[in-house]
Parts: sequence; structure tokens; C-alpha cells
Amino acid sequence: MREFDVIRRIASLAAQRKSHPALITGIGDDCAVIQPAARTDLVFTTDFLIEDRHFKHETHTARAVGHKALARSLSDLAAMGAEPVFCLVSVALPPHRTSRWIDGFYRGVLALADQHRISLAGGDLSQADRVIADVMCCGSVPRGKALLRSGAKPGDRIFVTGKLGRAAASNWRVKPVPRLETGISLRGLATAAMDLSDGLSLDLRRLCLASGVSASLTGKLPIASGATLDQALHGGEDYELLFTARSSTRKRIAGSTEVGVIQSGEPGLILFEGKPLLPGGFDHFA
Amino acid sequence: MREFDVIRRIASLAAQRKSHPALITGIGDDCAVIQPAARTDLVFTTDFLIEDRHFKHETHTARAVGHKALARSLSDLAAMGAEPVFCLVSVALPPHRTSRWIDGFYRGVLALADQHRISLAGGDLSQADRVIADVMCCGSVPRGKALLRSGAKPGDRIFVTGKLGRAAASNWRVKPVPRLETGISLRGLATAAMDLSDGLSLDLRRLCLASGVSASLTGKLPIASGATLDQALHGGEDYELLFTARSSTRKRIAGSTEVGVIQSGEPGLILFEGKPLLPGGFDHFA
Repeated sequence: MREFDVIRRIASLAAQRKSHPALITGIGDDCAVIQPAARTDLVFTTDFLIEDRHFKHETHTARAVGHKALARSLSDLAAMGAEPVFCLVSVALPPHRTSRWIDGFYRGVLALADQHRISLAGGDLSQADRVIADVMCCGSVPRGKALLRSGAKPGDRIFVTGKLGRAAASNWRVKPVPRLETGISLRGLATAAMDLSDGLSLDLRRLCLASGVSASLTGKLPIASGATLDQALHGGEDYELLFTARSSTRKRIAGSTEVGVIQSGEPGLILFEGKPLLPGGFDHFA
Repeated sequence: MREFDVIRRIASLAAQRKSHPALITGIGDDCAVIQPAARTDLVFTTDFLIEDRHFKHETHTARAVGHKALARSLSDLAAMGAEPVFCLVSVALPPHRTSRWIDGFYRGVLALADQHRISLAGGDLSQADRVIADVMCCGSVPRGKALLRSGAKPGDRIFVTGKLGRAAASNWRVKPVPRLETGISLRGLATAAMDLSDGLSLDLRRLCLASGVSASLTGKLPIASGATLDQALHGGEDYELLFTARSSTRKRIAGSTEVGVIQSGEPGLILFEGKPLLPGGFDHFA
């Protein structure tokens, strides 16, 4: 199959969808063209999904790989409180992968894209020894309203959505669900936010470093059924949201649990039940 | 070296630069945040650069790889007539690549970024068997002024910038120069435009298919010194601009050569000296 035919098929799959009103020109030109709405900021993220690192051929169907590749980047939009606008999906794959596999991959991408009304606007195709996908997502927020990691203040309460350790307990086979609606509901409420991609211990440390604060976790974590405490603290890939809010905030965010408090200690130091917690999450270069 | 340290070093290199005024939040959060200027469209492209496919470790220094990774995407901005705004640079590399290599790679990226005033706003880092870079670039154009592939009409003249076959003749060792200033000067003048990444024969076919036209090339191509006709027609990676303009256009675009005329024949058909020319350029899935 020639690259041109693959692109034509993907473009035809994408064209069957109603595209985001901001998308003027999609797949097929040198660039996608976007007309940003007035008084909005745009947010951008990009994430690799690499065979034998983030998924295995034996346990993940092509559709599951496509789903996960897009879900990882959508989760970053959720962390900013952004609404999805468009994505660029690039994939390099071994020559022995069939056109059926490529089709399945893009169907996985597009099924999740349809759910969250994000348009597939372009990407790149190439060959590699193993499958490597790279997905760039763009989202929009009202001007100045993006949720950052850097706004947590001593006294703020720490929250997480959902249950922790679910991905690790399933041996990373569960389909990640990006928390986009929750992210949007956090605008103007969360003082800091990020998504839990590498585990609570490592990600909370990052949030604290960005905010120049420390944190104390209580022992009462929302642990997923079947998961261990270790998996809940360090498991990674849960794609839940981690956020902070003023202690005076009375509004409850549905599906979230208070897990600790921000303190004015050594930046990045995390206490768990009073003792220092070493970051044990996923580090690509460890 | 841990991922966090690598990111911190890259962020520190990027922070030494004056960032684009549209960039509100750069490296270090879940997403980069951009505040688009009023009455502009934004254009987006992403391109892989893969070891042993687009470069070789033996012949390309880390800096040359960084330069080429960014240049490929900048060339797509040039093709749209866009001014560079920001880029996201992702790289997956084998564990045996030293921190010196990573440093060199990013210095190559940033040296070219400085030349064209594009801000490094984020990316991703991971591991792979061979180096795979994926660079996303965003550019801006006045609203409605992006140059597309689809506007060529019968009678329009066909032009290319620079000399063709230069990359092939050098065995792909020359540093590509993205034609950003030329691209901007084509706004309101070119009826269609794209960059020459895969060779004139294949890329002109794509432009003609997008415009629903055919083309006739004259024998008078601007062939690079040392290159063969075959390299000029099919070589690829020249990153010059291919564009069409009304025959009535009297304004000359500096450094460009007229090479043919658009015709109302079978869409995508290219004649060279009157005979059908088969696309012989680079196809990642051929």
C-alpha cells in the first residue's frame, strides 16, 4: 500500500465526521489551518505511544492502541481545563503491519475523537522497527483560564478524581478515560492541576516543584479495587486529575476525593502519613 | 540521567531565548499555552525524522539532526506563507545515546529556531531502538491568506525556488534551508504552493491532484550543480517551494524559476517535455 492511499483512506474516514468549526483546512495540505475563536487561549500537548513501552502487540488490539494514543494527549487537555479542538496523529510502523492494522488504529483514534468532538486535522506516516505514535492535541480555554501546575499555595487541599492504581492493577490493559468534563468544571476553582500519567508520588512532586511548595498526603487514598497501596501511589497511567483548591472552597467536584494538604516546606517534598515519600513513578530515562 | 533533569536543561536552554509574544506558558506544564493574535489564522504541521531513514548516525552530527528535524516542519510553514510562532519537539532515543548527544540535538534545534524566531514550547521524551524525532510547528498568517495546494488553475505558470537535486547530489548531507521569507512574499500572489520534500515529480502530482489539474514541465529546470536530471526530478528533500501564479503576474519572486504551466488535463498527470512523467519520489509506504 502506498502512503498516498493510506492518507486518502484516513482523510476519507475523517471527512465523514462533522469537523470542529475552528478547523478551516484539514488533512491533505502542507499544514492544517485553524481560525481561533475570539478571546480564547489555545493549549497544546504532544505524547508518544511506543510499542513494548506503552503497549504490547500481544495484549493491545490496533483499536486499543489508537484509543490510548489519543487518550494520553486528551488527558493533558483535561488537566488544563480545555475543550478539545483538533489533533495531529503521526504513526511510524514496521512494514509487516497490515493495512487492516492501520485501519484499526485510526478507527480507535476516531471513535474516541468522536466522543470528545475533536477533529483529526493531519499527521505524518513513516516506517520504524516498532510502532511509534505521536499525538498532538490542541484545546481551547477562555482567555487566561488555563489551569497550570504552578498555582498551589500552602493550606490548599489536594484532590484526585476516580480511583488510583487501576491501570497498574490491570497490568495496564484498561482503556484510559480522559477527564475532560471534570477539567472544564475546575476552571476558576482549582489553584493548580495536572493529570496523573506517571503515578501520584512523581506527579505530585512535579506539581509541588512547579508551585514551590511541599505536600502532605493522608492515608486515605481512593484505591482502585484490586490495586495495592504501592500501585495507587506509584502505578502510573491512571490518567485521573490531580488538583488543588482553597480550603474555603465548598463546591464539591463530583467523583473527586481529598487526599492531603499543600504545605510551605521544601519544594517538591511529599509526606505520606508524616514520612517522606520517594517518587517511584515512571521515568522514561531512569 | 533522569527525564526530569533532561527537561530542566532543555527548559533552561529555551528560557535563555526571547519567546514569541503569543507564547504565554512554555515548557513545564501539561500543555503549552498560546494567545493567538486577533484576525490571524494558525497553521500546524508535524514531521517525523527517523534514524537510518532520514539521517544516519555516521554522517549526521546531533546538531545536524536537530537542525533537520526542525527544518522539515519549518519548510511546511513556508509552504503556507506563514510566520513561525512555536514548536513542540519530541524525541525518542536509545538509552546508549549520551546526554551530550541530546544536548547537541537541542542546540541544533535552537540555533535554527533562533534564526527564524520560533519558540520551543514543549515536547515529549522517550526511549526507542533508534532516534525518532517528531516536530510540530505552528505558524500564523493574516486571516484567509494561507497558501493552499488546491488553487492552481489551467494557464497558471509553475515556479520553483532555488536549485533542484541539491540534497540528492550531496547524498542528503546538505543542511536544508526553509524558505520562510519567500513563502511570506507569495501571499496574495501564488495561486497554490507546497514545499518540495519528496521530489518535484511526486510533489507536483500532489499539487495537481489537490487542484484537479494537470501540468506540463519544460525541459529548463534549475538543476543544482553536480546533480543529475533524475535527481532534480525525483531526488527529494530539497525543501524548496513549488508554487503556481497567474500568467499575468509580472512580479518576480527573487530566486525562483518558471518551470512549466498548469493544464486542464487528467488530474495529477505530469508531462515532461511532452511525455508523461511517472512520480519517482520518496514514498514511505512504497
